[in-house]
Amino acid sequence: MLGLMQDWPLLIHRLIDHAAIQHPRRAVVSRSVEGPIHRTDYATLRTRALQLAKRLTMEGVVEGDRVATLAWNTWRHFEAWYAISGIGAVYHTVNPRLFSEQIAWIMNHAESRLALVDLTFVPLMEQLAEQLPYIRRFVVLTDAANMPETSLRNAVPYETWLAEADADYAWHSVDERTAAGLCYTSGTTGDPKGVLYSHRSNVLHAMTINTADMAALTARDIVMPVVPMFHANGWILPFAAPLAGASLVLPGAKLDGASVHELLESEGVTFSAAVPTIWMMLLQHLRASGGQLSTLNRVGIGGSACPPALIDAYQREYGVRLLHAWGMTEMSPLGTWSFIKPEVAHLEGQALLDLQSTQGLPTFGVEIRITDDAGTALPWDGKVFGRLKVRGPAVTSAYFKAEGAPILDAEGFFDTGDVATIDPNGYMQITDRSKDVIKSGGEWISSIAIENLAVGHPDVAEAAVVAIPHPKWDERPLLLVVPKQGTNPTKASILDYLSDKIAKFWMPDDVLVVESLPHTATGKLLKTKIREMVRDHQVG
Amino acid sequence: MLGLMQDWPLLIHRLIDHAAIQHPRRAVVSRSVEGPIHRTDYATLRTRALQLAKRLTMEGVVEGDRVATLAWNTWRHFEAWYAISGIGAVYHTVNPRLFSEQIAWIMNHAESRLALVDLTFVPLMEQLAEQLPYIRRFVVLTDAANMPETSLRNAVPYETWLAEADADYAWHSVDERTAAGLCYTSGTTGDPKGVLYSHRSNVLHAMTINTADMAALTARDIVMPVVPMFHANGWILPFAAPLAGASLVLPGAKLDGASVHELLESEGVTFSAAVPTIWMMLLQHLRASGGQLSTLNRVGIGGSACPPALIDAYQREYGVRLLHAWGMTEMSPLGTWSFIKPEVAHLEGQALLDLQSTQGLPTFGVEIRITDDAGTALPWDGKVFGRLKVRGPAVTSAYFKAEGAPILDAEGFFDTGDVATIDPNGYMQITDRSKDVIKSGGEWISSIAIENLAVGHPDVAEAAVVAIPHPKWDERPLLLVVPKQGTNPTKASILDYLSDKIAKFWMPDDVLVVESLPHTATGKLLKTKIREMVRDHQVG
Repeated sequence: MLGLMQDWPLLIHRLIDHAAIQHPRRAVVSRSVEGPIHRTDYATLRTRALQLAKRLTMEGVVEGDRVATLAWNTWRHFEAWYAISGIGAVYHTVNPRLFSEQIAWIMNHAESRLALVDLTFVPLMEQLAEQLPYIRRFVVLTDAANMPETSLRNAVPYETWLAEADADYAWHSVDERTAAGLCYTSGTTGDPKGVLYSHRSNVLHAMTINTADMAALTARDIVMPVVPMFHANGWILPFAAPLAGASLVLPGAKLDGASVHELLESEGVTFSAAVPTIWMMLLQHLRASGGQLSTLNRVGIGGSACPPALIDAYQREYGVRLLHAWGMTEMSPLGTWSFIKPEVAHLEGQALLDLQSTQGLPTFGVEIRITDDAGTALPWDGKVFGRLKVRGPAVTSAYFKAEGAPILDAEGFFDTGDVATIDPNGYMQITDRSKDVIKSGGEWISSIAIENLAVGHPDVAEAAVVAIPHPKWDERPLLLVVPKQGTNPTKASILDYLSDKIAKFWMPDDVLVVESLPHTATGKLLKTKIREMVRDHQVG
Repeated sequence: MLGLMQDWPLLIHRLIDHAAIQHPRRAVVSRSVEGPIHRTDYATLRTRALQLAKRLTMEGVVEGDRVATLAWNTWRHFEAWYAISGIGAVYHTVNPRLFSEQIAWIMNHAESRLALVDLTFVPLMEQLAEQLPYIRRFVVLTDAANMPETSLRNAVPYETWLAEADADYAWHSVDERTAAGLCYTSGTTGDPKGVLYSHRSNVLHAMTINTADMAALTARDIVMPVVPMFHANGWILPFAAPLAGASLVLPGAKLDGASVHELLESEGVTFSAAVPTIWMMLLQHLRASGGQLSTLNRVGIGGSACPPALIDAYQREYGVRLLHAWGMTEMSPLGTWSFIKPEVAHLEGQALLDLQSTQGLPTFGVEIRITDDAGTALPWDGKVFGRLKVRGPAVTSAYFKAEGAPILDAEGFFDTGDVATIDPNGYMQITDRSKDVIKSGGEWISSIAIENLAVGHPDVAEAAVVAIPHPKWDERPLLLVVPKQGTNPTKASILDYLSDKIAKFWMPDDVLVVESLPHTATGKLLKTKIREMVRDHQVG
């Protein structure tokens, strides 16, 4: 027997409808790519989104089509998400920082037929256009006055093109499970993989992040997503802010410390979110300039592990809480958030900082577990680490165009590829990537944990740990170190340094001193390459 | 094209699963009906709910069956909601304060086959049992030691009966739209009407109330729902608290000021919710006893209009914020909440109090509008009032066993039966019930507004306004007043008193001084009876 409640599907347009009705004049402020600060509001953006929806329809875009965006966070990119999903099509955010071959591969795999491109990325698209046969038209996100000369196919300035439609459009009605957004992950191995968000997953995820133990956005918040919308669904903030009726500040192309600080202060931002690098740059700027943070009170930080010193500096020097979060593109993207449970509310000083440096814990709507390779659940003791698996309505079940390939286990959990511990209070801490963990005699050894310790040696600038095969233990850790300039560390001194810091069976079987280590485009250690480097190494 | 996110239906059991995994030892404290304080936690209650689910299955209860509860807020009632919905059956909360004929009518209409009954209500059930042929067994919510002698059919003490099952049960998997709960509204006219909640509506509504501008429950909150679970889905708190990992304090049968105060203080309650009467009684107790509220910081208040003086007293004297909410059984039940938008954040003193005395505004998931009788939307100017209509995933679309009877308008909105204004900032204020509003020459006159003014007259103890037919204006207001003891107000003095307070066309055509006015069982003016009383009245 079904209940008798209203059939009110969780569709993305309802978010901007809500904001336009309940918070019509709430400001949406952008640093435009052209330069000047641009000011608008939710009621105006809803009208423009309807207009864009109609224009897309005139262009022949239909339900299920992908529309690529190569764009910074601005009001135009924001309205485009609502317009594209509002006709039942799919916003496909392309990360312009990837290698150009990856960008071409992704755009062709997605078969996007239209591309909305910021001025910044016109040269990139001109360089790739020949390789992008599916794109029928490149719309440049600017007005006629700022339109550059370009060879791009059917190029037109966005504002001129948009003005060809009026806003007399009714949102396309679809099943709430309909695809709404597409974002590719780009691992260090293999082809990029597309995650296909639905209306339902995005709306539920926006509700989740606004619950009181996560970002908890209110109508009084002024929210600046520094994290680009082309990163992991923009951390859901372009949906969560209108849901809460919060004001939005969109920083456009300028993400340096001074530019971010200027907007934080001039617009009175209360909540922001970005990767640790951004907050590191801002901290350097603040210290150099003597700047203050007079309205900011909390920050969601994720994407990579946040150094405890950074959390501490913001808290002590500026009264700003950095709230560690963890997630991934496959999770819409949020999984955990480091909020305070009553069990740990008494913590202070270093113990509190240690807790704040974990990746936190999930709120309702995300289930997490750690298992061994056989899928057996492991205990939550803060010590044992295992494969981190997740389940929930905003977690992917398959990759785009690879629906046949199972990526969930028998109970429907997705293997994140991370290795983690969970402590008795539920706080999760990532210890490694599962492909990097060293499996020695049935025990797991965290490559990252040894690396973090090794860089504590006074002569070590950078460290990497990879597995080498071992006849008895299957795998054993090998440590590679790059010396600090002017130093000459020895294997013996490094092993001696580590000896009282880690368990005996974690001790590297060998230490290699190397001049440099290979990195990915985003600065991460390229362990596949390192493993190739040491393939023939004999422990000696 | 559908998205590729996981199929994770919004089922009620996931709430207690989440609490048991992430917040296993979080306290659930009850004042038992037997007397002593009872302490347990979410992990234990999930196990007991699974055990009860199995026991219900052994009893022959199957998907779609209704199970009646006549019970106070205790851990047993709480676990019963999860167990009943966890096998796909429907918890049917019966309000034991209704007239006994209504109770029998409701239980027979629901066709509940099993009744879970608190000790308090055993005599009531014994009196009605003959009229309740569908109930095969009455389970008394106590243990063997406290079991009374009773003639109830197949009566058994709950704990003994429950112990016949173990907890080896897997939640029944159902479509998220499956019926989960049933609660009847009892208007002043006509038969009671059943609202049939679904898993989806309850889970979405629990997520909504935990967003940061509503109740905003966190894992650090200690939540005491004084509002009974048999009132309007327990204001969703039995679902919202586990979702947040908040501690629960359940006050059992004792809702007087002293008992409520004792629990608030002894358990460190931070959030509570109840109708204004409860807070009035508590205030009287606090003032008489000199008691303090040392941990309570916010209270959801609704069910009827909250006097501004009460909001003011709690804020000034105890530092507790009374947050006015509005909703109804048909809305799961929350519609609006009086949170502060930036547009009104500058208000102080009386202006702030006036704002806090409105019913507030909806957050995402509830749409509201006001219309005239023809369904045309009316402006949000804070003056014009019209029929208040609502739409959303937790709003009813039909009444139980009356699915054919349309209660939604062409756009899917449900007419609440209330009449309201909405101000330019979106704040809604109920001005009347639509059946009580006086329609005079195309204009609407609020009966409640005139009543509230009339009781300001020094000689008036109570006032009622009803419509009387008028040949030219269709309807005109008639005012009835009950004099204060020892006074003798005249029509002339009352009309004179009102003359500079309301528009001329709002002035009552006549004033009747009466000894008393008829009321419902819950103390509301019984306007149907009053209209009968004055049916033959000639304006003079």
